[in-house]
Amino acid sequence: MRTQVCIIGGGPAGLLLSQLLHRAGIDTVVLERRSRAYVLSRIRAGVLEWGTVKLLESAGLGQRMHAEGYVHDGTYLAAQNRGFRVDFKALTGTPVMVYGQTEVTHDLYDARDAMDGVVIDEAEGVTPHDVDTDAPYVTYTKDGTEHRIDCDFVAGCDGYHGVSRQTIPASVLRTFERVYPFGWLGVLSETPPVSHELIYANHARGFALCSMRNANLSRYYVQAPVDDPIEKWSDDAFWDELRRRIPEDAADRLVTGPSIEKSIAPLRSFVAEPMRWGRLFLVGDAAHIVPPTGAKGLNLAMSDVHYLFEALKTHYHDGDAAGIEGYSETALARVWKAIRFSWWMTTTMHRFPDQTDFDQRIQETEIDYLEGSETAQRSMAENYVGLPY
Amino acid sequence: MRTQVCIIGGGPAGLLLSQLLHRAGIDTVVLERRSRAYVLSRIRAGVLEWGTVKLLESAGLGQRMHAEGYVHDGTYLAAQNRGFRVDFKALTGTPVMVYGQTEVTHDLYDARDAMDGVVIDEAEGVTPHDVDTDAPYVTYTKDGTEHRIDCDFVAGCDGYHGVSRQTIPASVLRTFERVYPFGWLGVLSETPPVSHELIYANHARGFALCSMRNANLSRYYVQAPVDDPIEKWSDDAFWDELRRRIPEDAADRLVTGPSIEKSIAPLRSFVAEPMRWGRLFLVGDAAHIVPPTGAKGLNLAMSDVHYLFEALKTHYHDGDAAGIEGYSETALARVWKAIRFSWWMTTTMHRFPDQTDFDQRIQETEIDYLEGSETAQRSMAENYVGLPY
Repeated sequence: MRTQVCIIGGGPAGLLLSQLLHRAGIDTVVLERRSRAYVLSRIRAGVLEWGTVKLLESAGLGQRMHAEGYVHDGTYLAAQNRGFRVDFKALTGTPVMVYGQTEVTHDLYDARDAMDGVVIDEAEGVTPHDVDTDAPYVTYTKDGTEHRIDCDFVAGCDGYHGVSRQTIPASVLRTFERVYPFGWLGVLSETPPVSHELIYANHARGFALCSMRNANLSRYYVQAPVDDPIEKWSDDAFWDELRRRIPEDAADRLVTGPSIEKSIAPLRSFVAEPMRWGRLFLVGDAAHIVPPTGAKGLNLAMSDVHYLFEALKTHYHDGDAAGIEGYSETALARVWKAIRFSWWMTTTMHRFPDQTDFDQRIQETEIDYLEGSETAQRSMAENYVGLPY
Repeated sequence: MRTQVCIIGGGPAGLLLSQLLHRAGIDTVVLERRSRAYVLSRIRAGVLEWGTVKLLESAGLGQRMHAEGYVHDGTYLAAQNRGFRVDFKALTGTPVMVYGQTEVTHDLYDARDAMDGVVIDEAEGVTPHDVDTDAPYVTYTKDGTEHRIDCDFVAGCDGYHGVSRQTIPASVLRTFERVYPFGWLGVLSETPPVSHELIYANHARGFALCSMRNANLSRYYVQAPVDDPIEKWSDDAFWDELRRRIPEDAADRLVTGPSIEKSIAPLRSFVAEPMRWGRLFLVGDAAHIVPPTGAKGLNLAMSDVHYLFEALKTHYHDGDAAGIEGYSETALARVWKAIRFSWWMTTTMHRFPDQTDFDQRIQETEIDYLEGSETAQRSMAENYVGLPY
């Protein structure tokens, strides 16, 4: 088989890239290791930057998102059970959209199917070859048969554990990492959200986040030791802990119910450089991971897709390779800004095991300063809604 | 002897408080441990917030400051030998004033002398007594004779090492501290400054700062190990190191000459709470220390003076004790914001011994973000020129 761009990974980044390229007349094949059912069942992020919304619209995907998503004009920040609101719309002119990654992926599969896009799932042993030459190809096994796809370019949209980044020689690849000494214990519950807009809460007992998916589906988190056995956290223990950390009025009106999903996730910042090696591009989690504080993970993958799509379009339509050659630098400039913001929001909102009294006061003052300074709020807001592409 | 407010410490905070109270018809005595010549010879900070400028004006001290000081509308920030300007005036409407603490102190002594203010220097063994009662008094020895001053209030303007803070029982006092693992090697030189406005430079070899006192007096600093023997740093070694860390165009035009002062100072953040105990108030360095990055030390002492003066005036003129009772909380709210800003600027601009590659990229990105975002620059500027009282 031959295609122009072979895309490794059928998550939202790979599918959106495929969709955008297809609409620009550029041929792609998407290879996904898992089954479609598995990909569609993953519960992930839920907050879309407006740039992501526009990008999905430009790929013809706006309809269900606008019908079922929730536009949030702001968010609440809290410290020690007292909250205040940051009005994104008033401060930056831009809101955010709450629309789950699961829904985005669903829409993307529908869109790919409608255009007869080639998405091969359960592709085993996917391996890029000769990406540092002019004739790269990708091999994989499906139903016991080995296949080869010759292509012009390989887009590595296969996440942190994927093969794409590992294809880049260690002598070329440079990585940057920060592991945070705690996790997020998350609960999904069929209850009305305690707040339409999100509540990010700093508390002496640890961080908490009240988020939502829809009018009867809530997503809550509390900071917890990453190695806590999940059995330690009964639903009641979770709700009690959440109540202690959020503003009192929110705690009072919190509606609890059985958890339909409960897990502890680690928090990490990670960046791999460069994001291009020859004809292989890294996109999204394959190149970088952010802690969930600030909701940047999916959005960052989407901005990578934007840059790579524009670069490939310019290459195929205009014969201009400048975009391709500059992809890594262009994407990384925005990646690092989102990494910085996620790091700042994580370090400002969480309790650290080695935190001194001085450190704690600095955190409290950071939040005080945010509450009192319109400029500080605007800086937080412009990062949260997404810096311009 | 009896006075209304006994002020311990004849530095700029004590003298300004005395001057303001005197002009409001409130009687003071200032006790200074050192000789006047010693106090006037101390080389300290040089950048005044506009609020400090206005406060000094309100005490009748504007004339020489406006004639000899330098108004700076902005500053330069640099990373890896490349700089950009932050325009305070355009971003906040407010500049800063470069006018040395030495000059401020000089003007204050002149003003106190002109009003026959009582400033007793070389007062040994100054000790506050009974400040938790309605009848406090202060004892000291001068020329071998012991003296006692009965008073309504004691203002502790006697710096970090002074007796005032130590008077507060350990059971009451809470302290917060961060010691930075490096120092500032500073040189004063009778050379034309390399830049009219300051240059704060982040560099892989460490921080550097180009500052100035006047058209032929430069003040330069490089980050250095705090325990470096000063003999290690010849003038040539200092100039070479400075040149490596600042933007290339500045390095090219740097005029060097013999140092007339050279020393290494440690960097520290420190806050003591509360700032009032009974009838004793802590003012300035007696209660808090900032690292010099951001030039907040003198300015913070001045805002304490402002709050305390207003509180005492309201007490004496209106019989309203609310200002006095709220002094600690009011002053500390602003203190912590300046502590936060100085901490942020210090951690953003210096190289730390345990800094990882990730940390370094976060620093570089913080400076990139500042360069690219007007909002981020405005946030930096509003803190640098001074948050409102």
